[in-house]
Amino acid sequence: MFKFKKYLTEKQELVNNSLRNILEHFTVNNRLMKAVEFSLMAEGKRVRPVLCIAACEAVHGDIRDTLPVACALEMIHTYSLIHDDLPAMDDDDLRRGKPTCHIQFDEATAILAGDALLTLAFQILSSANILSGHNVKNHPSVWLKIINILSSASGWNGMIGGQMLDISSEDSVLNLDKLEHMHSLKTGALIEASVSAGAIIGGCNTKQLKHLSLYAKKIGLAFQVADDILNVEGDPLVMGKTAGTDAHRNKNTYPSLMGLNGSKKFAGQLICDALQALNNFDKSSDPLRKIASYIINRKK
Amino acid sequence: MFKFKKYLTEKQELVNNSLRNILEHFTVNNRLMKAVEFSLMAEGKRVRPVLCIAACEAVHGDIRDTLPVACALEMIHTYSLIHDDLPAMDDDDLRRGKPTCHIQFDEATAILAGDALLTLAFQILSSANILSGHNVKNHPSVWLKIINILSSASGWNGMIGGQMLDISSEDSVLNLDKLEHMHSLKTGALIEASVSAGAIIGGCNTKQLKHLSLYAKKIGLAFQVADDILNVEGDPLVMGKTAGTDAHRNKNTYPSLMGLNGSKKFAGQLICDALQALNNFDKSSDPLRKIASYIINRKK
Repeated sequence: MFKFKKYLTEKQELVNNSLRNILEHFTVNNRLMKAVEFSLMAEGKRVRPVLCIAACEAVHGDIRDTLPVACALEMIHTYSLIHDDLPAMDDDDLRRGKPTCHIQFDEATAILAGDALLTLAFQILSSANILSGHNVKNHPSVWLKIINILSSASGWNGMIGGQMLDISSEDSVLNLDKLEHMHSLKTGALIEASVSAGAIIGGCNTKQLKHLSLYAKKIGLAFQVADDILNVEGDPLVMGKTAGTDAHRNKNTYPSLMGLNGSKKFAGQLICDALQALNNFDKSSDPLRKIASYIINRKK
Repeated sequence: MFKFKKYLTEKQELVNNSLRNILEHFTVNNRLMKAVEFSLMAEGKRVRPVLCIAACEAVHGDIRDTLPVACALEMIHTYSLIHDDLPAMDDDDLRRGKPTCHIQFDEATAILAGDALLTLAFQILSSANILSGHNVKNHPSVWLKIINILSSASGWNGMIGGQMLDISSEDSVLNLDKLEHMHSLKTGALIEASVSAGAIIGGCNTKQLKHLSLYAKKIGLAFQVADDILNVEGDPLVMGKTAGTDAHRNKNTYPSLMGLNGSKKFAGQLICDALQALNNFDKSSDPLRKIASYIINRKK
């Protein structure tokens, strides 16, 4: 039987080692580097990198080829957390069980550390052969495609656009459609990019990509619903961040629109849909199946 | 005789039109888009895009191929201005003759607009064929190389690293070597990238690239020395930004270290060196020669 916990730990380790290798490749040793390292190497779930790796496995690709992408995804995710936590944005003090970057360092350093991580992601993707420690086989045009997928997903038609919508909709009530649209941009787009990029690196065909994208859309939304539920009933000590902040800020959330039970039912249905999208895949997609369940059963 | 003013206006127009085309390509119509447009389309000198175009001309390349790069360079430059102007950084109210982005909109929008511009730069570079309205001829590996040059130059070993050094050295006195190192990162790296990228897109050989890089290093530093001089004796109305701010903030500048006259002499010498690096180029490099003089004679 497939042991998910072991799989997850192994893949997280693989990603952490690759991230560490990348940081060591650069000889910058100053406050900026320390801030980048502080935020990037803080204990994270590495959901996006693991999804990228698992999608590559699902289409029988070589997972070593995904490592530059996996690292770039985690860099983009971490930069978005650093900037979202800033006083002018969500003004959060706690993240991944540690002080947020601007609390540990200062605001200017946090802004620059975020900028540096976003830039580094594209530096890594454009020199994948040099930094992966493994002769990455994909053609340059595949790497260009990956850069386009990641930049589109994290830009103003994706993650940044979603964050803007989120900020501007505080204190006003969204309906479910608008809430879903906001989340499909804010978190969904990068999660879908993680899966698509992994599948493309693994050499998927068009039909596989279509099914995997659907899987990703469903788990992306489920991930957000689960996050909203955790914000209501999660344990701050386990989560490593403050609970109850959404209600405090009058944020539009699934529990606020469909209640706690309604939200849990909805998350369950999304995971069913996600699993169905994997129907035509063999046992190699077991990690993707397990990640789907993990997303709604996690405690942080 | 080569008419530089006409050349400059024409190329600025070309860049502005390309930027406008790119913005129109996206159907985002919200506060974020407005902030991006406000800062990107504000009257700027477009020094980096024009350098990129002129370097391509100097090696007899097709300048239409440079437009995605020229636009990406201006996006990266504009994002850096938006973030540098933030209250937590330089806290500036005026830029390009208009309120800075966080004054016109708000801090959160300015942070996100900067993030969006940086991301958009890589989105454009990775889909150059789609967005240029012209079938860009270069091989995907050339575009990967360009993405690597721009991301390296603007990352923590380049522009962002320089900004970090600049912030952390306020209120302490730097010697000339350290000041030059800071500027070589903060402004020099992206100016050198502009020239190198233009030359590579134009199909330069290794020797040409070496000479053009030297030219770029020299004018990059001259540009900063001239900026420092303008901050002392420039007209705020012409510059579109506040003067005298460096002294007020105890910033390390060339005038503070070598006096106004010493700084002017130094800038002149750098331009001589830059022109010498172009000795083996024919008349096609006249624009680059004129840009060198323009850089130290500009009033803003």
